Formats: sequence, C-alpha cells, structure tokens
Amino acid sequence: MDLRSLIRTIPDFPKPGIQYRDITTLLQDAGGLREAVQQLAAPYRDNPPDAVAALDARGFIFGGAVAVELGCGFVPIRKKGKLPGETIGRDYDLEYGSATLELHTHGRGQGERILLIDDLIATGGTALAGLALLRDVGAEVIGAGFLVDLPDLGGKAKLEAEGIPVRALVAFEGH
Amino acid sequence: MDLRSLIRTIPDFPKPGIQYRDITTLLQDAGGLREAVQQLAAPYRDNPPDAVAALDARGFIFGGAVAVELGCGFVPIRKKGKLPGETIGRDYDLEYGSATLELHTHGRGQGERILLIDDLIATGGTALAGLALLRDVGAEVIGAGFLVDLPDLGGKAKLEAEGIPVRALVAFEGH
Repeated sequence: MDLRSLIRTIPDFPKPGIQYRDITTLLQDAGGLREAVQQLAAPYRDNPPDAVAALDARGFIFGGAVAVELGCGFVPIRKKGKLPGETIGRDYDLEYGSATLELHTHGRGQGERILLIDDLIATGGTALAGLALLRDVGAEVIGAGFLVDLPDLGGKAKLEAEGIPVRALVAFEGH
Repeated sequence: MDLRSLIRTIPDFPKPGIQYRDITTLLQDAGGLREAVQQLAAPYRDNPPDAVAALDARGFIFGGAVAVELGCGFVPIRKKGKLPGETIGRDYDLEYGSATLELHTHGRGQGERILLIDDLIATGGTALAGLALLRDVGAEVIGAGFLVDLPDLGGKAKLEAEGIPVRALVAFEGH
C-alpha cells in the first residue's frame, strides 16, 4: 500500500514556502491507518517493549493503537500542565521561544524498555525532549517510530546519533 | 478485569473538593488498555462505523486503537487552530469562558456512520460540540463510547437525550 499517496500536502501553510504534510487524510482511510500501525509495530512483534510512549497530541493516535497491537502499556508525554500528579519536565526549542514536555514519575522507570512514537519527525526537538525524559526516569528507549520523516530537517539523524533505531514509514524531501 | 481499580484518584486536584480521575494508570497497564479498547469496540463489531471520531487529546489514545480494532478510519476533532485546511467550528462552555472545537470539512460527511470516542464524559460540553460538528457535515453519529462517566455531571444523559446510544465502561459518583 502506498502510504505516501494518502498524505495530503497543503502548500504555503502555515506560512509561505512551507509544504505542510497533513496526515489526517491517511487517518480517515481505514486501510491506510491499519497499515501504518502494523508497520510501526512490526519490528517489535517478536520482542515487544514494556510500553509505548507517545507525544502529545497526534502521536497519541498511533501510539495507543501500536500499544494494543503489541500487547503493551501506553505512556503519554504531554505538554506542560496536562498531567496530574508528580511529573518531570524538559524544555525544547520552538521556532520562536521554547515549550516544555512532561512525563509522570509514577510510571515507567528503571530498566523498562520503551518504544517512542509520534506522527512526524522534523527537527527532532520534541522527540529528543521525550527521549531525555524517558532516560531521566531510567527507562531504555529501544526504538522510535514515525509515520513521516522530513529528512532535510535532521531530526531522524539526531535520534540515531543518540543510539536509537528509528523507523519512518514515509519521507518527504524539502520542507 | 476490574478497570475501575486501574484508575487513580487524585484528591483536591486541580482544586479543593475535586476528585480527579487519572486514567494514565490504566493506560500503562497492558491488559487494562487492551480490555478498555475491546470493550469500547465490542458493540460495533458486527456492524462497524465508517470512522471513529475522537476528541483532542486523550480521546485520541483510545480512538485510534478502536478504529484499528474495528477496521475503520479515524477523524480527529481538535482544539481551535490545530487542523490545517478547511474546517468548521463549534464553541463549548468551560468553567470560565468558552473554547472552540474544529472538524475538517474535506473528511467524513453526508450519511457516513460515525462512532464518537473520548476518555471521559463529565458535563458533556465537548462531546455535544463534537456531535454538533459531525451533524453539521451530514454524518450520522451511531454511538458514543467513554472509558469513564461522571454521572452526577449529566453529560451522558444529555447525549442520550440527543438519541445517541452511549457506552461508558466505568462510572464514578460524585465529582
């Protein structure tokens, strides 16, 4: 199945020169959604992680499904202030300024094997913050999976430089 | 399986007198997550919807998994400004002020059968806004599913008064 053809490109959004890759057209295609989830889960079927951790908010769509597919738990990594109870935080850079991601400390920890999932990797800012949070609680990130990679923005290479095997199902050159 | 016992209660959060029902403890339990997704999907296995629509952001965790379980597509209903391309919006009330939910107009529409999913129903404000958006594009909402119901807040009864069959897996009295 050609997952790439199910992703819609919106030119000049959110500003001139940016080609926005809209995954919602893939999500609403039953076969495309199932295929994407199965491909993200495939490398881990024989040796599943203890949990899938996914990034707020679009990563949740794939992350919950991949966790059920692999028979493991799910851990949300959320924007600041969204998780109740005790959390730790990590800042990441935005185009202008920065933001913070948070992870529960009651959850996954020391020695647990975690698969990190998001819909898209661009500069890798949020994925690297998620990786740092999971390592902060003593977890081992055994891999990362994304529906879309924008390789010119370098995020996948940065994760791989951290020793993380990365699977991206579709790549779009340019940005 | 006792799903209720997997949900953590945080007293006096986010303010005194509120018992916050934290579903993340259920999510990180592999058996609990799978059981919740299967129970949400069960009533629709013999006659699946065309798509699951889920509410931003925690609804995405269950919604994507239920869509894969039922072999149908997925439609995100998002907070204002998050969906690229053409959308319609509906306001809903918050404790102080209001907010807006949005739905793509390119997506599901006339005559399609949609299952609405979220993690929790309280006053029903977001679920009713989601229902209104789906009806605005001509879809038929064939049911709604929630992990948690807070019956004292009346949201489930409001959805049922709109003719929507509602399934909630766990109910907590009080709020």
